[in-house]
Formats: sequence, structure tokens, C-alpha cells
Amino acid sequence: MTTLVPVELPKAYRLLNHGPTVMVSSAHDGAVNVMSAAWSMPLDFDPPKVAVVIDKNTLTRGLIEGSGEFVLNVPSSDQAALTVAVGSTSGRDADKFAAHCIRTLPGSVVKAPLVDGCLAWLECRVIQEPHIQAAYDLFLAEVVAAWADPAVFADGHWKEDQGGRRSIHYIAGGQFFETGAAVGIRK
Amino acid sequence: MTTLVPVELPKAYRLLNHGPTVMVSSAHDGAVNVMSAAWSMPLDFDPPKVAVVIDKNTLTRGLIEGSGEFVLNVPSSDQAALTVAVGSTSGRDADKFAAHCIRTLPGSVVKAPLVDGCLAWLECRVIQEPHIQAAYDLFLAEVVAAWADPAVFADGHWKEDQGGRRSIHYIAGGQFFETGAAVGIRK
Repeated sequence: MTTLVPVELPKAYRLLNHGPTVMVSSAHDGAVNVMSAAWSMPLDFDPPKVAVVIDKNTLTRGLIEGSGEFVLNVPSSDQAALTVAVGSTSGRDADKFAAHCIRTLPGSVVKAPLVDGCLAWLECRVIQEPHIQAAYDLFLAEVVAAWADPAVFADGHWKEDQGGRRSIHYIAGGQFFETGAAVGIRK
Repeated sequence: MTTLVPVELPKAYRLLNHGPTVMVSSAHDGAVNVMSAAWSMPLDFDPPKVAVVIDKNTLTRGLIEGSGEFVLNVPSSDQAALTVAVGSTSGRDADKFAAHCIRTLPGSVVKAPLVDGCLAWLECRVIQEPHIQAAYDLFLAEVVAAWADPAVFADGHWKEDQGGRRSIHYIAGGQFFETGAAVGIRK
């Protein structure tokens, strides 16, 4: 199982700042599910908030509306096929955890599970904004706990090359771009 | 100057789907500005919509509120220093276009300019949601025209390796990850 270390909350936005595709896990009233979402982003630094699009037709939507909670899991490139698989099937038709042999870890604050083998995890509590949830499938949430694999993210920073285990960025048709090399300037 | 080709609107989300950092250009009442934004994402396919966080303290915020329009410009890695520069200075203090020798192209629908040398451009019209604009600095918008450099994105798809001119994904402290190699499965 992956070793998790806590990420201090004011640095949690950095887990999503570079725009990776995520898996969204959720649990409510005995049901649990996981789906993929290419459309998520940070919304604020401290307290950290996120925004994510969750389609009305998904099982996840009901679990999030029922529980007011979810986890954003940041998968690695060796989970690309899994990310496509859980994004293209419904939890109404099959238990995706069993079908794909997904191991989980318990959340520390929320009931939704953490998907094992990911690079990072954000436990989130929904900020109730019913109009934009209904009109745009858009959910805003506060990050109430955050975790990372210390081999890839430590002391508030992604390691060079994300420790060789890169996050993924969905293109279309089952294809992703991996996170690439670091570039830029020191301010 | 860059050659632009139109991107059909139902494919416009693909310009942002992989989570690149963008530059946001805006114009209103004789003023024009450009800033950077790491926090943007697609919100819908057709008609295409986007979400972007625009801080209250920016000059851009007033120009967008005044005009109801903006452009999301997707910079390439050779514009990383420029992206940091326009993200760390205010248009109230200097004309960033003059200070950084930024050439622009006219928008086709909106008055905000397109930043030359980028990979892709989304012309956007704000969907008025005053509560979330005020409470979260979050702007939703419809994409009313989209463009790409055909050397990097053509026929609705990013080219392999984005034609060797890669988009960038902000980390922190003036550093980005470049978009990396394509991975995944064909469904």
C-alpha cells in the first residue's frame, strides 16, 4: 500500500495547480463509487477550495449530493488505463472497485475512500451552491485534508519529474499527455 | 505573425482539457490588459463553456466585468517567462503589451486581443452569475470562437507532441511543467 504523508492545507492547491486529470471517489449510505474527471481546478488557497464538474447522469452525482463529500485522487501514468476504465463505465452497472481490483485507503475526515497507488489525494466537503450545481453540474468544495505520496510530493513541492511517476492530463479518446519536464524561471 | 485556423466549437474544450496555464486578455473602454491564470477549465462541450478564477484585485477583473468578454490564450513553453511576467505585475502599473513587446491579433467576436505566438485561443463571453463572481472570483463564460496554430492542433486534435511546441502547467515560484509525452489506450 502507498505511504501517505499529510500536505499542509495552504499548499494543497499545488496538487491540482498543473491541471492533472483526477479520479473522484464518493460514498453515501452504504454505496461507494469512483469516476474520472478531466474538469477540476483549484479555486482558492487558504482555506483551500476546488471546483469540479460532475455530470447529472453519474452515480457519483447522487453520492456527492447525499454525503456532501468526495475525494479527488491524482492518478499516475501507470493508472491511465484505470482512469479511462472508471471514466467510461457506470457504478450503476458494476462495482468498479471489484471489477478493476482497486484497493482503497480510508479518508481521514470524509467517508469517501482514497484510491491506492495515486500520487496525491484531496478530501473535500461540498460548499452548497445549488444553483450552479443544477445549472452547470459545477461543484465547489473546501479541501479539509490533503495527502501525497512522499516519493512524488514533499515539503509542499512536487519533486523533480514527480519522482518519475507522472500525473496525467486527458486529451480525448483514451489518450493523455503525461506531465513533462520542469521549465521556467526563478523569480 | 502566427497563422490561426478556426477550431470548431464542439471541439474547443480540447484546447483546455489537459489543464494548461493560460493568459487572459481583456479590453474595455479604451483599456487593454493581459494576466496569467493557472485556474481555468472547461465547463461544457456544446455550446462550449469555461470557468476561470479572476482575482478581485486585478485590473483584468474590471475590464471583464465592464466588457463581459475575455480571451483565454494558451501559451507555449517558449512563453514561460512572459507568462510569469504578466502574472506578477499589474496593468495598473505598466502597459504590459509595451513592456514585454507583446504583439496581438484582433479577436473575431470579442474586443479583447489574441496574444501572438500562443498555441490556441478561446474567445469568451461571460455568463452572468454575480453571486459566484463576488463570492469566489469565479467567472463562467461561453466560448464564442476558438482558434489554434495548425502546427500544433489540427482537425480537432492536438498533434503528437503538440508539434514540438508544448503548453505549460504552472507549479509555483516561476516554474512550470511542460506538457509531456502522449500515453494511454485506444478505446
